[in-house]
Amino acid sequence: MRETFDKELVQLHVRFAEMGMLVNEAIFRSVKAFVDHDKNLASMVIEHDQAINQCESQLEKMTLELIALYQPVTSDLRDVITVLKASSDIERIADHAVSLARTTIKMKGTHRIPEIEVEIAKMGEYAAKMVADALDAYVKRDLERAYQIAQQDLFLDQELAKIKQLCIAEMQANQKAVVSGSHYTLAATYLERIGDYATNVCEWIVFLKKGEIVELNPGNSDDENGNA
Amino acid sequence: MRETFDKELVQLHVRFAEMGMLVNEAIFRSVKAFVDHDKNLASMVIEHDQAINQCESQLEKMTLELIALYQPVTSDLRDVITVLKASSDIERIADHAVSLARTTIKMKGTHRIPEIEVEIAKMGEYAAKMVADALDAYVKRDLERAYQIAQQDLFLDQELAKIKQLCIAEMQANQKAVVSGSHYTLAATYLERIGDYATNVCEWIVFLKKGEIVELNPGNSDDENGNA
Repeated sequence: MRETFDKELVQLHVRFAEMGMLVNEAIFRSVKAFVDHDKNLASMVIEHDQAINQCESQLEKMTLELIALYQPVTSDLRDVITVLKASSDIERIADHAVSLARTTIKMKGTHRIPEIEVEIAKMGEYAAKMVADALDAYVKRDLERAYQIAQQDLFLDQELAKIKQLCIAEMQANQKAVVSGSHYTLAATYLERIGDYATNVCEWIVFLKKGEIVELNPGNSDDENGNA
Repeated sequence: MRETFDKELVQLHVRFAEMGMLVNEAIFRSVKAFVDHDKNLASMVIEHDQAINQCESQLEKMTLELIALYQPVTSDLRDVITVLKASSDIERIADHAVSLARTTIKMKGTHRIPEIEVEIAKMGEYAAKMVADALDAYVKRDLERAYQIAQQDLFLDQELAKIKQLCIAEMQANQKAVVSGSHYTLAATYLERIGDYATNVCEWIVFLKKGEIVELNPGNSDDENGNA
């Protein structure tokens, strides 16, 4: 029984890691598509989101079956439940990558502001790295890195505030910048939210290792977006 | 054993319903604060969010204990797991109410556009009702209503698209409208997201009743915000 449970638990983790890789790919691609104004790559991110949603559904089914069949307790139960909860977080990260991809498509042909695009690119690369690191720390159950990664979210909060200000200044100075300024603001908001969900993944690492439910990112700056 | 489990399950549902009431209150208040330009009420929403986060943590602990102690199967297990997952969704609804409250505070003293505020108020009232209905349907395990409520999300998607257009037109016509237009766009985005999470709650009702994991809101209009 124990051996079979362990095998199935490994399968669950493999599937979660696979979902994580798809989500990582979605963010990297959505950021690259935004930076390169690449409508085709953006469309690809949107198309591939269905596979990520299916991963989440499969993980839900697998966890329920595992619990019903093997009735795990203590740390085994924590393991299974954590996959169930963390899969929601990473699915939402992918949703925000899709939102960014949709923005890229809508922006085609609008007035561009390179100065702001540089900031969004920076933010995008940072968010993508944060997610990749959080997923890696999850797989390795690395508590110390979980705490460190969660701290990085502050940078995204600051970048969002900065980009919002830049957009407002541009939109006030130039009527042509209004449409793109609105898109840029939303794009930065999506990336900031991705940081919140990466922080949630870090919280699940703490839960796995210590059995404690913690809030790693309380009192989120002065930005409109509270913690996820 | 069965009797004790049933008692604890009732406790879990009572706690979830309490959390639901707090979340409902948060949205109603954040919408009212926005409509009335009421900074104090907005601050109250932000302060009270801590209690909602604690509810989620408590529910997580309760569900884990319930599973470990009673090792429920089939529909009992579904019941417990659903609370665990749905509590994340309603916690995120509250986060968006907080985001709206923060916008209200930041907007104090900025140029107002009554025509857009009317639309946001309409959207806010609609979103608040959608969440209240979804939570009510959840408590009553009302499958038919779950399907109906999920359909209502389309209205919020359409309203968001409309408000974005109105904001862009105003910002293009009047430099003074830029700051408020940016805030209005974000406010509408938060309310649209609340609709997505209410739809998620409806999906959990389907899961409870039919054991199936469904997507009630696929291919979400042409708006930037994909499904939650």
